[in-house]
Amino acid sequence: MKFLSEKLNEEKVFKDPVHRYIHVRFRLIWELIGTKEFQRLRRIKQLGTAYFTFHGAEHSRFNHSLGVYEIARRIIDSFEDIEDVEKWSDHDRMLCMCAALLHDLGHGPFSHSFEKVFQLDHEDFTRKIILGDTEINEVLKKVSENFPQEVADVIAKTSDNKLVVSLISSQIDADRMDYLLRDAYYTGVSYGQFDIERILRIMRPHGDQTVIKHSGMHAVEDYIMSRYQMYWQIYFHPVSRSAEVILTKILHRAKQLYEEGFTFKLPPHHFYSTFDGNVSVEDYLKLDEGVVMYYFQIWQEENDEILQDLCRRFMNRNFFKYVEFNPNDHMKEWYKLMALFKEAGIDPEYYLVVDSSSDLPYDYYRPGEEGERLPINLLMKNGELRELSRQSEVVESIAGKRRTDHKLYFPLDILMDEKDNGEIKRNIREILYK
Amino acid sequence: MKFLSEKLNEEKVFKDPVHRYIHVRFRLIWELIGTKEFQRLRRIKQLGTAYFTFHGAEHSRFNHSLGVYEIARRIIDSFEDIEDVEKWSDHDRMLCMCAALLHDLGHGPFSHSFEKVFQLDHEDFTRKIILGDTEINEVLKKVSENFPQEVADVIAKTSDNKLVVSLISSQIDADRMDYLLRDAYYTGVSYGQFDIERILRIMRPHGDQTVIKHSGMHAVEDYIMSRYQMYWQIYFHPVSRSAEVILTKILHRAKQLYEEGFTFKLPPHHFYSTFDGNVSVEDYLKLDEGVVMYYFQIWQEENDEILQDLCRRFMNRNFFKYVEFNPNDHMKEWYKLMALFKEAGIDPEYYLVVDSSSDLPYDYYRPGEEGERLPINLLMKNGELRELSRQSEVVESIAGKRRTDHKLYFPLDILMDEKDNGEIKRNIREILYK
Amino acid sequence: MKFLSEKLNEEKVFKDPVHRYIHVRFRLIWELIGTKEFQRLRRIKQLGTAYFTFHGAEHSRFNHSLGVYEIARRIIDSFEDIEDVEKWSDHDRMLCMCAALLHDLGHGPFSHSFEKVFQLDHEDFTRKIILGDTEINEVLKKVSENFPQEVADVIAKTSDNKLVVSLISSQIDADRMDYLLRDAYYTGVSYGQFDIERILRIMRPHGDQTVIKHSGMHAVEDYIMSRYQMYWQIYFHPVSRSAEVILTKILHRAKQLYEEGFTFKLPPHHFYSTFDGNVSVEDYLKLDEGVVMYYFQIWQEENDEILQDLCRRFMNRNFFKYVEFNPNDHMKEWYKLMALFKEAGIDPEYYLVVDSSSDLPYDYYRPGEEGERLPINLLMKNGELRELSRQSEVVESIAGKRRTDHKLYFPLDILMDEKDNGEIKRNIREILYK
Amino acid sequence: MKFLSEKLNEEKVFKDPVHRYIHVRFRLIWELIGTKEFQRLRRIKQLGTAYFTFHGAEHSRFNHSLGVYEIARRIIDSFEDIEDVEKWSDHDRMLCMCAALLHDLGHGPFSHSFEKVFQLDHEDFTRKIILGDTEINEVLKKVSENFPQEVADVIAKTSDNKLVVSLISSQIDADRMDYLLRDAYYTGVSYGQFDIERILRIMRPHGDQTVIKHSGMHAVEDYIMSRYQMYWQIYFHPVSRSAEVILTKILHRAKQLYEEGFTFKLPPHHFYSTFDGNVSVEDYLKLDEGVVMYYFQIWQEENDEILQDLCRRFMNRNFFKYVEFNPNDHMKEWYKLMALFKEAGIDPEYYLVVDSSSDLPYDYYRPGEEGERLPINLLMKNGELRELSRQSEVVESIAGKRRTDHKLYFPLDILMDEKDNGEIKRNIREILYK
Repeated sequence: MKFLSEKLNEEKVFKDPVHRYIHVRFRLIWELIGTKEFQRLRRIKQLGTAYFTFHGAEHSRFNHSLGVYEIARRIIDSFEDIEDVEKWSDHDRMLCMCAALLHDLGHGPFSHSFEKVFQLDHEDFTRKIILGDTEINEVLKKVSENFPQEVADVIAKTSDNKLVVSLISSQIDADRMDYLLRDAYYTGVSYGQFDIERILRIMRPHGDQTVIKHSGMHAVEDYIMSRYQMYWQIYFHPVSRSAEVILTKILHRAKQLYEEGFTFKLPPHHFYSTFDGNVSVEDYLKLDEGVVMYYFQIWQEENDEILQDLCRRFMNRNFFKYVEFNPNDHMKEWYKLMALFKEAGIDPEYYLVVDSSSDLPYDYYRPGEEGERLPINLLMKNGELRELSRQSEVVESIAGKRRTDHKLYFPLDILMDEKDNGEIKRNIREILYK
Repeated sequence: MKFLSEKLNEEKVFKDPVHRYIHVRFRLIWELIGTKEFQRLRRIKQLGTAYFTFHGAEHSRFNHSLGVYEIARRIIDSFEDIEDVEKWSDHDRMLCMCAALLHDLGHGPFSHSFEKVFQLDHEDFTRKIILGDTEINEVLKKVSENFPQEVADVIAKTSDNKLVVSLISSQIDADRMDYLLRDAYYTGVSYGQFDIERILRIMRPHGDQTVIKHSGMHAVEDYIMSRYQMYWQIYFHPVSRSAEVILTKILHRAKQLYEEGFTFKLPPHHFYSTFDGNVSVEDYLKLDEGVVMYYFQIWQEENDEILQDLCRRFMNRNFFKYVEFNPNDHMKEWYKLMALFKEAGIDPEYYLVVDSSSDLPYDYYRPGEEGERLPINLLMKNGELRELSRQSEVVESIAGKRRTDHKLYFPLDILMDEKDNGEIKRNIREILYK
Repeated sequence: MKFLSEKLNEEKVFKDPVHRYIHVRFRLIWELIGTKEFQRLRRIKQLGTAYFTFHGAEHSRFNHSLGVYEIARRIIDSFEDIEDVEKWSDHDRMLCMCAALLHDLGHGPFSHSFEKVFQLDHEDFTRKIILGDTEINEVLKKVSENFPQEVADVIAKTSDNKLVVSLISSQIDADRMDYLLRDAYYTGVSYGQFDIERILRIMRPHGDQTVIKHSGMHAVEDYIMSRYQMYWQIYFHPVSRSAEVILTKILHRAKQLYEEGFTFKLPPHHFYSTFDGNVSVEDYLKLDEGVVMYYFQIWQEENDEILQDLCRRFMNRNFFKYVEFNPNDHMKEWYKLMALFKEAGIDPEYYLVVDSSSDLPYDYYRPGEEGERLPINLLMKNGELRELSRQSEVVESIAGKRRTDHKLYFPLDILMDEKDNGEIKRNIREILYK
Repeated sequence: MKFLSEKLNEEKVFKDPVHRYIHVRFRLIWELIGTKEFQRLRRIKQLGTAYFTFHGAEHSRFNHSLGVYEIARRIIDSFEDIEDVEKWSDHDRMLCMCAALLHDLGHGPFSHSFEKVFQLDHEDFTRKIILGDTEINEVLKKVSENFPQEVADVIAKTSDNKLVVSLISSQIDADRMDYLLRDAYYTGVSYGQFDIERILRIMRPHGDQTVIKHSGMHAVEDYIMSRYQMYWQIYFHPVSRSAEVILTKILHRAKQLYEEGFTFKLPPHHFYSTFDGNVSVEDYLKLDEGVVMYYFQIWQEENDEILQDLCRRFMNRNFFKYVEFNPNDHMKEWYKLMALFKEAGIDPEYYLVVDSSSDLPYDYYRPGEEGERLPINLLMKNGELRELSRQSEVVESIAGKRRTDHKLYFPLDILMDEKDNGEIKRNIREILYK
């Protein structure tokens, strides 16, 4: 039998709190899960630093990746039962399931901060891991020489198979559906819940996109609102962002020290190629959150005061406080604060940080703009397509609107300690809390 | 105001998937949570290696400790509303909540295996952390010089305050109730569920123990059965035990190499005092699962074949297979297998491992026996106490019965590879699978 | 002890699927639940005919009334724990709980249709039951001669105690919160869920209204969206409305026959005073859904073809079909249809029915307009109040917008039966489905 | 296409809180649901009088019947995916689904009491409805002349198709699985929960029975324990039984009055044939709980004191109180009580009632005994079958053990009213509560 459609002797199941069970019938999927590159995702948290705010959010990307696979599998299965819909080939079915399973493969530890500080791109690494000298590549090649490339193309959205792409990457795809449900489950909030079984029932392949039967519009509205709520309640929670700020500044500092030729007690070998900007796939795969935390723990004792302080803050959850602050609107105060921080001997580069979060919960198609996102289309009774926000007032209210939130982070404990520079610190606090 | 009963300006809450919210009203509790020793529990998984079998089980002991505190808090609160029951003093209330929060403080990474290999005792470390030169000790001392000792005594069950002890350590205590519910939630199984609100309603302080109103017997039966099911379905799952086997053997091997003077590429400083058997609290606190995994990752490249192999197996979830096997019943086969393994060049000390799990879901009181456990007593209508298993046939069926399961673990992949010693390996497989 | 604050020897609890347990501590509440007028609510379904569409929705108003009481009780309890908030007197606390428990007391069978056909007003009957010669009145009077009146005034929103009123009747009150959660639970949909524990935590009494702490805005948004979704997914479901249409027409027909002096095989004594427009409280209390269904069953055999047919349809769930149709926009077709129905011998008064549903999910305050509803106010950090829709774009998108849906209902089975008037019926179908 | 396997144009779904969705693909099933005999099940509560104790338990047999169908459908579907298992024919598949859907068709209002008082048998009526002149029969006959008989035989367990029978009627069948889950959901208790998805995965057709894969033994243990708990916590709750006692006595009294020629104000036509012991299917189908409650309401005003009193008690939930009492063990007190009741003018036939409940949660096979129940068999690794209680200690502890609970019910309110016969009543109370 061809490997592409080779089934296991007995279906394997994973107990999953979100989808009850995850079903694996094909040997190919089973072998992909068993690779060391996929197992590595167990050592990377799905929500980075969010567990400092929502202690339940300790789940890994491994967890989520299985979930995305399961949703993709169910969507394809549900297409089988619809009349008048062209059946998927074994090849497309497997391509879609592989892409779903592997879409997050390139995520590193605390991806967001790492990508920002070191100009890395996790999607780039996903591609490299799939195409490189890895166990993943070896398994995929059993299908055909070109199969790894096909999977990579679907994940990169450059594949010609737009329908398969739309299941993995669109505004209502297997990835988003899984993470909303999963993150809601683990944090314990109710916001992320929506009726995924209904959504699966009303999705329809339509040419090269997936559309939604008109009768299910309210279920999709509910999904969009869940997404909106999860962003502001969980993903952009100011305390998690404070953890991100510290994390980012630790990485900055370590890189700077490395570049300045600082002598680390324990040389951070794992980071060298990252600091140098030429990290190989092999090095990248060795980085996980355990390794990063190992260094943070060690660095609590390093001979650099800033690195030491920031690492202690991170390990012991002693983060910065914050106020609402948009520097563009308050340039004068901003310069004043920087000056005062310097005067007080507190390096503003590390201790006075603006963080901005912005969200676009749903976007309609604006031709010609870069990065435009494919809209969600409703399939009307008469067979026409209609873009969601034209039909739903609720979605229209948030469609295309980018909402941004600016916060200014600083170490209140230091500013409250009036042993030195008490006068200056009082001035700073007055500006911050006026 | 006395620190013991000092309240926060505003109650703090943690969103918790199991108890919905965890409520913190007292400054003392809040400060304990903020200590670095307590924050360290975020880096130690509640269920050790179970996440290799149940991928959802990635939750930490931090998570669980907050839950135990919350249940203890609710039990004490519920006592307030019962007439004819002596009110707790502020001191006892706080003592109980602190002990609940801190009872797991001394757990190290993968506690079970560590304790076994290195003869450590997490309860001993809990005591040392509470009494030693730590942030925890500093906070507790704000109550009184003796308060840390009192908390340690409750956790050690040596306190004279038997009633407080019974809430933390008995066959139906805040610890067990939280872990059953929590582990069920995160793994996604339904077995661990029971009606905790009802149980809280029917608990009664009675002299120096906590008893259960007779009308609630069925709720307690249900709890006992949950416990029984969780043990056999989750805690003793043969795949998680296989991970434990590998883990234990890695630690064994590393210790042995250290003792033999082996030159590690990266000297495992973190383990030195553990290997030497004189680990200090300070060293102990530096060990967490990130650190351990860091070494395991490095050791995948070490110049010892066994260490290298075992670490790769652990990191990439390539565990041993197993068969039912009780060496006591099959001494001959056991010796034969050991001999054959040696003959095939596979060290049986590391690659042929018997693991036994045994559970005693509920025990009644057997005077005079060592380690006897306090039974659960029902408070009958006429005011008498009656031991649970005398009233419930279901509980009687499992009471006092220790059930043991023996499994033999081995690397099937090596035994299937017939390049060398094919004949011997076939012999081995024949014995194992006959 | 005064009856107002007399406690039961032991707290009573009701197991409730929505709130887990409903707690009753006061004798007054317990006695009210035991009255026959309150027990009667067991015989009236909370969602009328919705169970024909959502088979789970068979729960009664008894069920819901306990839930509203429980939420009110919890809100008041939560106020207790907030500093800087004036404590409620025993009197106000009990007044509020009684009003919550009794607010739906006057609902009759299939209220919506009954009120429409017979110009009844359930609020009017609630008042009459509380003030009349009833067991309810007897229990309330044990508090004081005037207490029944006070409770009735709170329910009628005419009480001076605006704060108590706001807990029972506002855009975010105990009534709405319970029915959204409860109806979602019984129907099995996920839309009605929101984080009620969080909402309870962020509600604040503020002068004579209940306001919401600013930090909880998103939780309230989520509640408003739940309300919006429940209306369109459940309450206005076209099939339930079809059942309502039949029900309404049955009542119309029976009344008309009664007025015309028709001889019923079984004289509908229970309905006489209702038909005559002078129903007493005593008669009203005898009407429940079992009684109404009893007559409908009997009327399946009555000598009036229309009554017989409509009752069979209702009993056996053989409802009318529908199309989207707004008569105001299609007067010509409307008249044409009526003419054709008559021509075909199908009485359009009973068999061609327009039903319109309209919803206003959230309304802001528009001074001077009649029926204005009190808005939800956010309590900002600086102590100011701010109306919700000014702060939330999502709420703004639906605030003050009445959305109306018009449907035309007709018996498709009759129209498909071409034995008689085949030509005319084809014409009718052509117009309906063009 | 043959009607047997004719599919609907589009699958229909019912939103169901227990199974999420109920899926109907075949026209035959759809038409059965639409018959008036099946719709009648909406007017009969699944748990009779339990809603007086657990207010959530207002769900109907309609509700449950859909659930049993859905589980049967899923079991058959799951068999499809198992290798080495003979595929079911279209005929057997449909036979099984019809039997599942219709198995409760013959239940009357408050079945338990009706059957007891009037010696009716709901299974007998199920058969008559399927075979008689009904819409159900008409639909089933579209398959073949003999199909109604085949369905009736499966429900009656007389069919030769033992495998199909075992899915509907065995100790682990679709009926039991649905009612445990559903009754738990609606009452809100957690006891009835078990992992049905896992049980569905481990069921295997094996010759003419359904067996359980050995690896799933714990899941079945959990199911058996759920059943055990539900019986004692819900089904045999003493307050629901008190309602049953009143109900039974009302029916007794009405029959006796009828037989004595009593002149009812409203002649109870609906009951005549039942009283006479010759109720036809047509009459039987007219009885539902609305009708029964209608008479109970009317009878509150009848000229018989006992009937009046009992009906008021039932309508207004003013039930009898109870004590533990087994007359066999206390014959003397029993006769004494009867004598004293008569002396006090309280008819013991209606006011002094022993009710006994007994449960056999799991039974093994005892050849030769009448009414033996088929045991649950485990399919061991070696292919042998092994009866469950031989493998599971927990199940063994309750297997074959009938537990019986006797209670004595009486009107405490009357016994407390010392206006008349105070002395005698005091004597009575002394005996009851000694």
